[in-house]
Amino acid sequence: MALSTAPYKGARDFYPEDQRIEMYIFFVWREVALKFGYEEYNASIIESEELYLSKTSQEIVNEQTYSFEDRGGRKVTLRPEMTPTVSRMVAARRQELAYPLRLFSIPNVWRYERPQRGRLREHWQLNVDLFGVSELAADHEMIILADSIMQRFGANRDSYSIRINSRKLIDHLLKTRYSMDEENALAVIRLIDKKNKMTKEVFNDGLQKLVHSDHIEELTGILDANDFSSLPDDVRALPSAQQIHNLQMLLGRVGITNVTFDTSLMRGFDYYTDIVFEMFDTAPENNRSLFGGGRYDGLVGLFGVEPLPTVGFGMGDVSIRDFLETHKLLPEFGTTVDVAVLIVGNHYEALVELISDLRSEGIHVAVDATDRKLDKKIKSADKSGYKKVLIIGDNELKIKRVVLKDLETGQETSVSFANIADKLFS
Amino acid sequence: MALSTAPYKGARDFYPEDQRIEMYIFFVWREVALKFGYEEYNASIIESEELYLSKTSQEIVNEQTYSFEDRGGRKVTLRPEMTPTVSRMVAARRQELAYPLRLFSIPNVWRYERPQRGRLREHWQLNVDLFGVSELAADHEMIILADSIMQRFGANRDSYSIRINSRKLIDHLLKTRYSMDEENALAVIRLIDKKNKMTKEVFNDGLQKLVHSDHIEELTGILDANDFSSLPDDVRALPSAQQIHNLQMLLGRVGITNVTFDTSLMRGFDYYTDIVFEMFDTAPENNRSLFGGGRYDGLVGLFGVEPLPTVGFGMGDVSIRDFLETHKLLPEFGTTVDVAVLIVGNHYEALVELISDLRSEGIHVAVDATDRKLDKKIKSADKSGYKKVLIIGDNELKIKRVVLKDLETGQETSVSFANIADKLFS
Repeated sequence: MALSTAPYKGARDFYPEDQRIEMYIFFVWREVALKFGYEEYNASIIESEELYLSKTSQEIVNEQTYSFEDRGGRKVTLRPEMTPTVSRMVAARRQELAYPLRLFSIPNVWRYERPQRGRLREHWQLNVDLFGVSELAADHEMIILADSIMQRFGANRDSYSIRINSRKLIDHLLKTRYSMDEENALAVIRLIDKKNKMTKEVFNDGLQKLVHSDHIEELTGILDANDFSSLPDDVRALPSAQQIHNLQMLLGRVGITNVTFDTSLMRGFDYYTDIVFEMFDTAPENNRSLFGGGRYDGLVGLFGVEPLPTVGFGMGDVSIRDFLETHKLLPEFGTTVDVAVLIVGNHYEALVELISDLRSEGIHVAVDATDRKLDKKIKSADKSGYKKVLIIGDNELKIKRVVLKDLETGQETSVSFANIADKLFS
Repeated sequence: MALSTAPYKGARDFYPEDQRIEMYIFFVWREVALKFGYEEYNASIIESEELYLSKTSQEIVNEQTYSFEDRGGRKVTLRPEMTPTVSRMVAARRQELAYPLRLFSIPNVWRYERPQRGRLREHWQLNVDLFGVSELAADHEMIILADSIMQRFGANRDSYSIRINSRKLIDHLLKTRYSMDEENALAVIRLIDKKNKMTKEVFNDGLQKLVHSDHIEELTGILDANDFSSLPDDVRALPSAQQIHNLQMLLGRVGITNVTFDTSLMRGFDYYTDIVFEMFDTAPENNRSLFGGGRYDGLVGLFGVEPLPTVGFGMGDVSIRDFLETHKLLPEFGTTVDVAVLIVGNHYEALVELISDLRSEGIHVAVDATDRKLDKKIKSADKSGYKKVLIIGDNELKIKRVVLKDLETGQETSVSFANIADKLFS
């Protein structure tokens, strides 16, 4: 029986036309991250399973990891996210590294989910993390960096919106104001995190089971508030609420005004400790999260070293590509080949040096030395998307000239061997 | 208990200083592959297990794959090599694609081996494949492409040697000349493939068990021959031997003279059908394979489509880095940060626009807005490897000037806000 040609379910094959788009997205991510002083790192996709047991979200660890035993009996996991890995790496060199420490990476990550639009089992993700800064400047930098990426992609600020919230504020409300214990508070946070995936009734039922009836009305009001001014006065006065307000003002200073204070924004991961943020596509047909992140001051400390204040975010290739396509922001990319050399007759040996010279001039040259007829070769070159071909047969070799044919216009020009590079770039 | 900070055994963490080297190697690979008209593709690291059962080497499949069942009961494998994947992708679009088809990729691949110098469980590998060309020009192009990579890295041709052989020739000897059946012939090929990993006695014993005593002497002589002229006359006259000879001549035409005809070169994979080649480091302390490849005309056809003549090779990051280090060819790479802005006092908000302007000019700016003392900030910047810092405090902000300090010379210059970019690039 013949082998199947399908890729693994929920993963993608990147043929050149897809890979060009992928490389463009990575190029923009890299360019902006470098401008903000971040340096690139990388790590292995296999990590020990224990790395995810303590702080990644329950749902991911129990239902979505790719975990298995290696041939030596080690329990390992294909990373479902990069944050535990970068925290591990920073912890390993906690003393030697200098702070503020800025790191970025573009890893692939794996989750066993039902594949659907915008969600695949494998995706690549820009990860940006800033270590060693407890000041609000760090949270601010993260969001302007993400915004700069969107600007660099050519997006208008009305095509995406940024939501910010404070885990600290929600924690304060639940634990101090409503006197809930740790476990119940976490259950409420997880419920709020899933709010948009359930009906209003199911959500309210869930809330009723976890929160004392005295507080339900106020909490529901706070969760429905979508700006600072609609919060109760004494909540607005809390330092964590003030901080969110300051962040919003500071973002306005650099023109980032598409920011909403959304008290229902939780972000799935258990490790967030303070400000969290998320960016959404505003197009009705693609109204999904484009990136998200926040402050996770406790993670590096889990490795037995002194804790480090940290802010980070991740942005996925699948959702960004959907965004760029939805808003018609994806440039058209053609082949990377400059010219194809079509050899007519058995002359490869005689042309080896000429071809080598063209490459020395920086030209991307694809050679066709098959024994097919010229019209077949031209058809193939055209199908490959090549714009120009050089045709060389007996006669051309004798007079040391080639025929340069433009496959778009059909125009043919005779060019001497010595002038090919000039002619191609003219 | 604290979590371990170690990476998975046999895998690497790439901190920025390692990632820069990795990016340099990838950059050179990409540049040369593009010059030869190859276009980049990529695929998922997870493949179905069956993809490797038929043609990858026995040893790899039985002892070295990372295989497991996913949560849906599918048997999957982390790719141990890229060739089956690219063959699958080409087979999936056998009719739509145009030929000659040139593809390259830089995937990571996994093998469960005992980690040692030059061999890790995970490595990245340049894969270059040319589909649709049965002519010797394809084999020739592969080797000059690999040689061009070595030249681009700055290597002299006496620091590496290229060995070539013909599987077709060996097949002809074993099956036709010595009348061996398929199974025995394959056993001999696998024995020869392991020749350098065993003593002469063990090898000879193995040969004696598989080959008729009449042929042992001749076969041993042929395997020990290291050039065309020392082969028996009637072996030299075989078309497969002639082809190897032509390839060697053709490589000489473009200055590639470090080529040996090595009849004992087999390459591990079962899918090779004709010419195979391998490049070795000639340094005694690092005498290992740098890349290898060959012709595998039968692989695409395994997917139930019309077969395609194919030549390809792979080159790994670990062995290339070892080579570059051994021969002192690795450039020194510094930080990608152009300048650090050290803010003294609570002035982040006032400087947000200035910093944003610097980035707009293409400058890679790392900001230090922590509340530490200036000397601490300078020390950190120095430890980070930054060469220049801009110092801004109360006074600088008032007169709209910064202090530009060169951390290598200690020199300080006062620069107006408007002239920072010019001054940095002067």
